Amino acid sequence: MSNKSHVSTSKRIYYFGSKLTEGHRGMRDLLGGKGANLAEMTSIGLPVPAGFTITTTTCADYIKAGSKLPQDLITDIKANMRRLEKETKKIFGDTKSPLLVSVRSGAAASMPGMMDTVLNLGLTDKSVVGLAEQTGNKRFSLDAYRRLINMFGDVVMGVDHHQFESAFDKVKKHHKVTDDTDLDEDGLSELIEAYKSVYKKHTGENFPQDPYKQLEKAVEAVFKSWNIPRAVTYRRLNNIRGLMGTGVNVQSMVFGNMGEDSGTGVAFTRDPSTGKNEFYGEFLINAQGEDVVAGIRTPEPVSKMKKWKPQIYQQLLKVKKTLEAHYKEMQDIEFTIERGKLYMLQTRTGKRTGAAAVKIAVDMVKEKRISQKTALLRVPANDLNQLLLPSFDPKAKRNVLTRGLPASPGAASGYPVYTADEAVARTENGESVILVRKETSPEDIHGMHAAAGILTSTGGSTSHAAVVARGWGKCCVAGAGELVIDSKRETITIHGKKIGVKDIISIDGSTGDVILGDVAKRAPAFTKEFRTLMTWADRVRNMVIRTNSDTPKDSAIARKFGAEGIGLCRTEHMFFGDNRIMAMREMILSENTSDRRAALKKLLPFQRRDFEGIFSAMNGLPVTIRLLDPPLHEFLPTEEKSQRKLARAMKVKFDHIVHRVNQLHEVNPMLGHRGCRLTVTFPEILEMQVTAIVEATINCRRKRINALPEIMIPLVGIDTELAMLRELTEETIEKVIKKKKYKGKLDIPIGTMIEIPRAALTADDVAQHADFFSFGTNDLTQMTLGYSRDDIGSFMPDYLEKNILEYNPFQTMDATGVGQLVEIAVAKGRTAKPKLKCGICGEHGGDPESIVFFQSVQLDYISCSPFRVPIARLAAAQATLLNQQLALFN
Amino acid sequence: MSNKSHVSTSKRIYYFGSKLTEGHRGMRDLLGGKGANLAEMTSIGLPVPAGFTITTTTCADYIKAGSKLPQDLITDIKANMRRLEKETKKIFGDTKSPLLVSVRSGAAASMPGMMDTVLNLGLTDKSVVGLAEQTGNKRFSLDAYRRLINMFGDVVMGVDHHQFESAFDKVKKHHKVTDDTDLDEDGLSELIEAYKSVYKKHTGENFPQDPYKQLEKAVEAVFKSWNIPRAVTYRRLNNIRGLMGTGVNVQSMVFGNMGEDSGTGVAFTRDPSTGKNEFYGEFLINAQGEDVVAGIRTPEPVSKMKKWKPQIYQQLLKVKKTLEAHYKEMQDIEFTIERGKLYMLQTRTGKRTGAAAVKIAVDMVKEKRISQKTALLRVPANDLNQLLLPSFDPKAKRNVLTRGLPASPGAASGYPVYTADEAVARTENGESVILVRKETSPEDIHGMHAAAGILTSTGGSTSHAAVVARGWGKCCVAGAGELVIDSKRETITIHGKKIGVKDIISIDGSTGDVILGDVAKRAPAFTKEFRTLMTWADRVRNMVIRTNSDTPKDSAIARKFGAEGIGLCRTEHMFFGDNRIMAMREMILSENTSDRRAALKKLLPFQRRDFEGIFSAMNGLPVTIRLLDPPLHEFLPTEEKSQRKLARAMKVKFDHIVHRVNQLHEVNPMLGHRGCRLTVTFPEILEMQVTAIVEATINCRRKRINALPEIMIPLVGIDTELAMLRELTEETIEKVIKKKKYKGKLDIPIGTMIEIPRAALTADDVAQHADFFSFGTNDLTQMTLGYSRDDIGSFMPDYLEKNILEYNPFQTMDATGVGQLVEIAVAKGRTAKPKLKCGICGEHGGDPESIVFFQSVQLDYISCSPFRVPIARLAAAQATLLNQQLALFN
Repeated sequence: MSNKSHVSTSKRIYYFGSKLTEGHRGMRDLLGGKGANLAEMTSIGLPVPAGFTITTTTCADYIKAGSKLPQDLITDIKANMRRLEKETKKIFGDTKSPLLVSVRSGAAASMPGMMDTVLNLGLTDKSVVGLAEQTGNKRFSLDAYRRLINMFGDVVMGVDHHQFESAFDKVKKHHKVTDDTDLDEDGLSELIEAYKSVYKKHTGENFPQDPYKQLEKAVEAVFKSWNIPRAVTYRRLNNIRGLMGTGVNVQSMVFGNMGEDSGTGVAFTRDPSTGKNEFYGEFLINAQGEDVVAGIRTPEPVSKMKKWKPQIYQQLLKVKKTLEAHYKEMQDIEFTIERGKLYMLQTRTGKRTGAAAVKIAVDMVKEKRISQKTALLRVPANDLNQLLLPSFDPKAKRNVLTRGLPASPGAASGYPVYTADEAVARTENGESVILVRKETSPEDIHGMHAAAGILTSTGGSTSHAAVVARGWGKCCVAGAGELVIDSKRETITIHGKKIGVKDIISIDGSTGDVILGDVAKRAPAFTKEFRTLMTWADRVRNMVIRTNSDTPKDSAIARKFGAEGIGLCRTEHMFFGDNRIMAMREMILSENTSDRRAALKKLLPFQRRDFEGIFSAMNGLPVTIRLLDPPLHEFLPTEEKSQRKLARAMKVKFDHIVHRVNQLHEVNPMLGHRGCRLTVTFPEILEMQVTAIVEATINCRRKRINALPEIMIPLVGIDTELAMLRELTEETIEKVIKKKKYKGKLDIPIGTMIEIPRAALTADDVAQHADFFSFGTNDLTQMTLGYSRDDIGSFMPDYLEKNILEYNPFQTMDATGVGQLVEIAVAKGRTAKPKLKCGICGEHGGDPESIVFFQSVQLDYISCSPFRVPIARLAAAQATLLNQQLALFN
Repeated sequence: MSNKSHVSTSKRIYYFGSKLTEGHRGMRDLLGGKGANLAEMTSIGLPVPAGFTITTTTCADYIKAGSKLPQDLITDIKANMRRLEKETKKIFGDTKSPLLVSVRSGAAASMPGMMDTVLNLGLTDKSVVGLAEQTGNKRFSLDAYRRLINMFGDVVMGVDHHQFESAFDKVKKHHKVTDDTDLDEDGLSELIEAYKSVYKKHTGENFPQDPYKQLEKAVEAVFKSWNIPRAVTYRRLNNIRGLMGTGVNVQSMVFGNMGEDSGTGVAFTRDPSTGKNEFYGEFLINAQGEDVVAGIRTPEPVSKMKKWKPQIYQQLLKVKKTLEAHYKEMQDIEFTIERGKLYMLQTRTGKRTGAAAVKIAVDMVKEKRISQKTALLRVPANDLNQLLLPSFDPKAKRNVLTRGLPASPGAASGYPVYTADEAVARTENGESVILVRKETSPEDIHGMHAAAGILTSTGGSTSHAAVVARGWGKCCVAGAGELVIDSKRETITIHGKKIGVKDIISIDGSTGDVILGDVAKRAPAFTKEFRTLMTWADRVRNMVIRTNSDTPKDSAIARKFGAEGIGLCRTEHMFFGDNRIMAMREMILSENTSDRRAALKKLLPFQRRDFEGIFSAMNGLPVTIRLLDPPLHEFLPTEEKSQRKLARAMKVKFDHIVHRVNQLHEVNPMLGHRGCRLTVTFPEILEMQVTAIVEATINCRRKRINALPEIMIPLVGIDTELAMLRELTEETIEKVIKKKKYKGKLDIPIGTMIEIPRAALTADDVAQHADFFSFGTNDLTQMTLGYSRDDIGSFMPDYLEKNILEYNPFQTMDATGVGQLVEIAVAKGRTAKPKLKCGICGEHGGDPESIVFFQSVQLDYISCSPFRVPIARLAAAQATLLNQQLALFN
């Protein structure tokens, strides 16, 4: 096709200066964030050194053309340079009054990792003389030149920085000085020659003496840096998609290092840590921006500027006001003071902590800068996490031993314990313990629940430990592979260092740090602003937020966090208690219905009591109870010791137990005998569970506790399955009502999980027998993608690395694939039953990006783990707003 | 709603007799098969005893009304009885010339298991006297009465048959006789009284003396029998759906037991075993139909009738001619001769063997009775199996030890061997062996291939052994649970009997029989008629039939069976050979790319040679090669001995091997690191395989063998996966072409399997990078339904038993669920790429019912195991015809 080599030929360069500013902040896509904001600041009268921006589409054209600069670009650049010379009254490469420029990249999204900055561009053997004349400071001028050669060689030409450093060391040695700043003009001249040799040696060419050659190469280097692996990875990790390329900002130089009346600084218009409306930042006298970054000298807080240059400080406070009034957002600025004159070099939206985000958003509504809706969209929902969990004091010292995966946020300290039973026993003793395991299994549940935190040496962020911990909001560090755990000797070895039972360890679930010793913690605080924001969110959102909870304690926490019911009450964890697991195992190993019924009879009172507790905690709110789901072998002991114990208890031979455990083994348990398949083959399990639910309901109601159970049948794939089990459930409900002689109204909805692709595809048939659908997006993802969550560790990293997947589909729902099934199921289900209640109870219920999808397909509710309830409330509000905005465009 | 109790009130009874016949054979749904055919025979002038049929809708109404006969039914029955009395000139319950009737059930489909027959109805204490008078035979009359009480008590009232038998024994004892027929009139009278007592004792009421009461109860019993478990199960097992109920046939009695000039018989209009056009059947003199069935006396072949009653024999030959001319189909008839007069009691389409079905269908076309299309639809495609495999001589004696599941048809005999290696060694020695295992694994492949047959004690018809065996057309009996296999001592114990290494055993893959000793076998024969039928099928079908084959030998067989290419050439089995498995294991256990490449280099020549062999066998036909699919741990040894051997060969520590094997273990291997996921993480595997394919192709082409490979990438779920691997494949192809300096055209299509739900849902994206789709319906079924094929044994029987599933979805494709995904994928794929070639290579490719579905969604080809190719060819033709018929209705 003749179009193939077609490139955009529209305007490539946008100038900003005192007389003419061609860009504005709305042009972020075309000019990049930095360029758009430089233009914007210029046009609202802030003191910005003049310059111009080359568009992001030019970068795209450069890449498309196979790394070739568009034909007319140099001409355009020259035209704009002439404009700049005119405005600054300096000449590029001049021997008298040379114009120097900086070259900086700048994409539409903030992207560290790309080529950053070249300063002092335009200096040559000739113009360095001009600069000395112009500034009256030869040393400064030489220093600027050597910096350019170093920076240009390093950043533009890829010469290893160390090459320049060792040249510097030689010169310093020769001149017998130790500090860079002690080198005199002769020394600097010698250094410049040494740098030029380094440059020549490693690039094969001389350092360019044509300033336009310098400029051209610098621009090209910025373009190239768009696609270096570091930048590509950054974009993937941060979900930055659909950008065309980077812009290039060429700006006349100002110098913060021209003496004691010069300086440079960075600042935030409000405190990015707390959100307080205070000017916040730091500055260095007689320094350039890179000195601040390099951390050679320690900067002063901006408040100190009041003393040093009160009028500049006042000017900065005015700038802060102007910027906030204009941008209606907290800004992160860079500035330079050249010989007592202030210049603005950058403004952008400032990053902030979750707490600050909430405070700033709410404050700005109060200040009438923004609307409530805007405020809601300003707070990244996930950042609320920081407000809801305890965390280590950021100022406390950490003796970090190793780093694992930050599997479940929070902070915990305690003695290491190696078995679930010990975790329970010592916690009951009042000790704080960390459960340390190679990996966890359902047998460890009670210990995991008891422990202050969980630490594993294998498994990823979707391992059993991680998933369970997140559900409880319990701190967990997983897959800390450097730990060598010896549970028999009760030691952890890490890089030869042994940690014993008397050593306290701390784990940071937000960073993955494993720390020796205790670390001071900060409790979560529900600020006034947080409560205000939540009220606004609740007003806007149109999805109900429920929680996934199996215990009265978790239910109470979730309720405090604003849960409007339980969307998923798993019943399996209830069987792991000490008195219960034996009866459960008897039930499983029974070889006939009457033995099974006898064992179930023992379990019934426990179940009933559990439900009474949960109903009481959720008084007046609906509680969706899922019937038994996991394969039965998950309840059986796998270790010989436990198997022998079971044999004794059941009065059968040990061999028999082993045989039955083997018999129940499955090749792919995920796709095996579990979910409603269990109750199809063993209807008496369903009868027991439903009996417990109904008896608990009636007992509560008689105590004036408004129990509102809903019964959920898991893993339905065929409408006939649900039809049969619904009938059995209804019969059982009737039986209990009769037995208990209950006269009240007891209208218990019966629904199903949609977690098997076939159920979604045939949702119209399934809906005939369901009062509600709850999407189990974990299993639905496993089956739709064919990924076992337990086994993705072997290929998922490659899939993300190689950009085959943009994100882990167990964290953010795969809207393209899995989402289609959700959409089909909702549509078909509501065709059959227009008012069918639809919700979601997979882990995606706590993921803001997924929540936007769920809102778009009109789910009625979301259920997530207790600690994510506030996040879901905010995310649901944001989803409503975003989907409204989207609807306006379509 | 007032309509709820609405019942059909249209005509309930259809009369058939010499003057009036209200039904015809087109009314099978309403009258049942038997009733419709009785009417039809009557109307074409055959001698049928007059009677009438109560409709199947009446049965439906009876059930709907909660087992209540429609109000006016008795009135209708009485009206028709009066019509019958008039025609027969006898009176129901009369004391002089009583009318006796038979009552028989008859649904639209043949259904053993339901209530069958009550004879002599209408006899009472009074009419029995009339019958004696009418026939002049008191003994006959009394005998008929006692038979009625027995039959009515047993069949209608559910009295245990043994109760009557022990009463009979007492009477015989009392009269000192041993044979039933020796009992005199007094004895029979006593027996009648004894039977009446039995009846009263077990029903609580007297044997009805009102003949209409008898008739009413008999009719009701027939209706009730429609829904007894036995009948429901039969319908399910035979996929009989959508029927309303059973008809009831009330017919005037004729007696084959009225003396030496009477008799009864059953016959086929052609030989049901061979299909030869010969009258075939047997008869008994002086007997009733039940005597033939009961097997008390041995019947004579119908040819003997020529001597006994030549004119009756001629009359029967005429009937045969008339029926075949009329029905244009081979008939199965029942007849009775009463005092020298022939009566027809039934005609229906006769069951036949596969061979007979083929011969009759082709012969009838030659006889111009039916069209070729009709002939194609007359042969159940699955029945061709019998023609294609060796089978045991049906006349040979069998010493059956136990019965397992008939997992893969055929017949095999040989010495039991217990390891794959021994199977190979002894087969190479010229011995015939049966591989006996608890279960098989991929490590046994070479032994399974070598053995004459495979016998396992666990696993179902979709176990590894079964699936692999069917693929090869190798005889397999699976899950023979009564066998106790001791592979160390090399014995099988069955019910205490020990079978050693010197004992030959035989297994029948069509029945599941495990037999002690050798059994004579019949070779398969491709008859002339078979070839003719196949030619017709090939002309009609519009889907190409390919085969699944991994070896030159299987490819040659498939080609002989008419395969038009290979649709699935698995490459994994190729790695199990003795020289290869070591290199394969080295490759898997390599910890870096260069070691892996070194091991792969060893495998390359083997792969290349394999492909050359297959290309040669398929010269000129396309060969779709699937790249490595199973998880790598399937190739690793699980037994310590083999692990130690591997450690020595690889010069690493044994512990290291154990560690790596454990490391590669997966919780759900089905959803783990396999298929194209392997080549995403280890691209060098793809490179080796594609190199082997292309080198083999070029080598063949240079020898003038027209190799036509197609490369298939398995387990794709995301379009980006395929895009990346396609690119790598294309690059590798280019590299080999260059290296081999090949100048010819080498256009190798690159496609993918659609076996993950997500791939089907996003087929429009996937199609961008695919030249063809091949549906892997095995895995697609596993993921869409969430069933692990290896684990369904624990619940599938219950699902079928409880009617939740109508059939095993791994045998016949679930068109409702999985089929939706196939349909979506074809539609979306062809939206993106209108000429996209679509086929299927799962096991459903050999299932006729599934083939009808595949044809309906317009697949281009089907691939099945070699031995099912003829079945698929016929089924594809039938699918074309059936879907054409269906299209006419819509």
